[in-house]
Amino acid sequence: MATFQIDSIFLDDIKALIKKKDNTLLKRKLQPVHYADLGEVIEGLSIEEATYLIKLLGSDTTADALADVDPDIREGILRQLSEKEIAKEVLELDTDDATDIILELPEERQEKVMSQIDDDEHLNDIRDLLRYDENSAGGLMAKELVKVKEDLSVLKCLNEMRAQAENVTRVHSIYVVDEKNRLKGRLSLKDLITANSRAKVKDIYIPKVDFVTVDQDGDEVAKIMSKYDLDAIPVINSKKELLGRITIDDIVDLIKEEADKDYQLAAGISADVEADDKIFDLVKARLPWLFLGLLGGLGSVFILQDFEAIMEEPKLRNLFFYTPLIAAMAGNVGVQSSAIIVQGIANDVVKGSLFKRLIKEIGLSLINGLSLALVILVFGQFINQAFMVSFTIAGSMMLVIVVAALVGTFVPIVLNKQGIDPAIATGPFITTANDIFGIFLFFYIAKFVLGF
Amino acid sequence: MATFQIDSIFLDDIKALIKKKDNTLLKRKLQPVHYADLGEVIEGLSIEEATYLIKLLGSDTTADALADVDPDIREGILRQLSEKEIAKEVLELDTDDATDIILELPEERQEKVMSQIDDDEHLNDIRDLLRYDENSAGGLMAKELVKVKEDLSVLKCLNEMRAQAENVTRVHSIYVVDEKNRLKGRLSLKDLITANSRAKVKDIYIPKVDFVTVDQDGDEVAKIMSKYDLDAIPVINSKKELLGRITIDDIVDLIKEEADKDYQLAAGISADVEADDKIFDLVKARLPWLFLGLLGGLGSVFILQDFEAIMEEPKLRNLFFYTPLIAAMAGNVGVQSSAIIVQGIANDVVKGSLFKRLIKEIGLSLINGLSLALVILVFGQFINQAFMVSFTIAGSMMLVIVVAALVGTFVPIVLNKQGIDPAIATGPFITTANDIFGIFLFFYIAKFVLGF
Repeated sequence: MATFQIDSIFLDDIKALIKKKDNTLLKRKLQPVHYADLGEVIEGLSIEEATYLIKLLGSDTTADALADVDPDIREGILRQLSEKEIAKEVLELDTDDATDIILELPEERQEKVMSQIDDDEHLNDIRDLLRYDENSAGGLMAKELVKVKEDLSVLKCLNEMRAQAENVTRVHSIYVVDEKNRLKGRLSLKDLITANSRAKVKDIYIPKVDFVTVDQDGDEVAKIMSKYDLDAIPVINSKKELLGRITIDDIVDLIKEEADKDYQLAAGISADVEADDKIFDLVKARLPWLFLGLLGGLGSVFILQDFEAIMEEPKLRNLFFYTPLIAAMAGNVGVQSSAIIVQGIANDVVKGSLFKRLIKEIGLSLINGLSLALVILVFGQFINQAFMVSFTIAGSMMLVIVVAALVGTFVPIVLNKQGIDPAIATGPFITTANDIFGIFLFFYIAKFVLGF
Repeated sequence: MATFQIDSIFLDDIKALIKKKDNTLLKRKLQPVHYADLGEVIEGLSIEEATYLIKLLGSDTTADALADVDPDIREGILRQLSEKEIAKEVLELDTDDATDIILELPEERQEKVMSQIDDDEHLNDIRDLLRYDENSAGGLMAKELVKVKEDLSVLKCLNEMRAQAENVTRVHSIYVVDEKNRLKGRLSLKDLITANSRAKVKDIYIPKVDFVTVDQDGDEVAKIMSKYDLDAIPVINSKKELLGRITIDDIVDLIKEEADKDYQLAAGISADVEADDKIFDLVKARLPWLFLGLLGGLGSVFILQDFEAIMEEPKLRNLFFYTPLIAAMAGNVGVQSSAIIVQGIANDVVKGSLFKRLIKEIGLSLINGLSLALVILVFGQFINQAFMVSFTIAGSMMLVIVVAALVGTFVPIVLNKQGIDPAIATGPFITTANDIFGIFLFFYIAKFVLGF
């Protein structure tokens, strides 16, 4: 295996060493470890143990690991560290991660930590980044990048880069700017290596360069970078001045977070929780959606009460046996339709007119509904149900399926047009709406057809 | 905006030009376009129009675009192209994309296309890649990479790289191998640029290098690359020989596909479909899950029939009004529990003992259940329901919630241990199981408590 695995044996070992305060062995074991693995170790420890490690190992080892751990755990650790200690960690980080950590601190600590950062350039970069919305390109970018002026020679450019590259973890691209720091194009390292050293930058740079503006939405940046297979993208302002760049690793994290969020919303879990979170955080994320479902269920009670009289009719009372089936169908169809639309919106595949989509969704649900209705008819014969009752159940289920599909399709489209995240319309929201709507339709259609 | 937007005006324009066969203008408009945008244009055209464009523009313009479009659309286009034409496209592509396209062809065409590729090295690379499972590291890797022998000088290394880099889209890392092509380490371009040109590769390379083996699972590769923030990772075999490398852009696609797949499964949509797919593909992806829900619903009919007698009892018949509520709660809780576990498994956060998880899930669902039960009691008073009936409903709902949570938690864990994708246990599967289970429990508990 290429990579080091953090297992419970390793973790127990570390915990024992912390208990014994065997600092020499702790350092020997943990300093060579990759920051992502050290982050996992930290996530496996108690806050007190983790804090002990961070103080012991020193910020050059721990800063990237600390930036990598779950924000809840980081919050607990930062609370145990002094402003001076936090400032040391922040100083080791790239400006984008540094800014994220500052932003997570309680407001009264932010200034105190920043006043302890003894690198003016780093501090100014952080102050600059603090101005941008977290979800914008400005909030995602780092100030670390390599740029050269267009009138340099390749040789001078290489020297300039040697100096700049010291502070940049991965170079990716070299950006070319004019004397006013306006983005003109890019040089790939490959081009630079394969170029004649006497050539000028302006002769070999690629003037075509993808970029985003500082106020563009993070999701949009993610789409652009993944569509055009970019490892990094420069960020400019309205004057075309080069402000920073966004690298693909941050976008990978963003894509995963977005996917997780949509998935959780579809399952009726709000907020960013994980299986290993505290029980009350999980209750807070789950209970509201269950409450919504409960309200829907109580709504159904009211509807069904209205039909209490037919319980006296042995032929008609069967309708009550089908309420879970109708609710399940309405819910399932709604979730399917909404999920496919929400995903289509996210991936930009939902094009074409609303009317065409309407026709398609009706066609689709008629095919599905008809297939299922046939099963109901056969089943009705099988349990010796009056044919007219089976027919009514099958027919109204079909209508419920069509309506549920339309609700599932159009609610997300409408929400999206209103600028609301359509993902909230998947899962419990659409299920509950369709449950109650489905039962209502079912009983009133039955009433109309069977004439009770 | 940085990027070119394909809108319907541009598309209509292209369609009109194709109709007029205005080849000069078509070339002028489309040759400067990025392949990802050209891919979008192709997806917006009919198969005939797209094929016309591909033949017109030439493989150096269209190959990457063709590799980028939806596989269904590509299949249609490839059917219209001769083996010679396909071979030309394949020749322009990196070996990983080339192999994917060959694999998509009907078996009888694969050899015919390969026999038309007039570049032996490219062909051998493709033949080599065809041997690996699509979902393994071998199936994801490309043969294009830059490698140098450890005993070269930096100067010679630069020359060697100049030669190799011609065929490599993005260099990322330079891999260092010994005389038997065994991976020894890597050189970053940054290190190379900042090194003294008389130094030897063996003095400056980094011996610590992440790698994956050729048979490792694609998902695992994605996890490693995103955890360690890697832009590229080398692939080796059991003899440590360097075989190829995987780049982050392919991993981004994989992460998105996986997330989409899990999301669709949770919503009861099997197979990879999109909102704009053909209606019968959509039916095929959705109907089986609805059918499963229907079977569950018919199961409930059987259970409820058993309790027909209590419809004669005005006090007890209220129980029937609550079946949609019980089913909804059981379904919602099950989906929540399963989603959080499935996501935890995917993100490797589900650690610790099964017993602790059991206690936590019971605690969590007791808190949620109790809160909801109180609402039921109040509601019961409000609609003048016999208190004992309300109490029974509230209590059994609580129990249903606990059981549903346990089913939702343990089914995915068990499936995962059996090597089955736990994502199938979210959505309709768990909802249906819990619906029927919940209604069963509800009525039998009521029977026991109320003694009918």
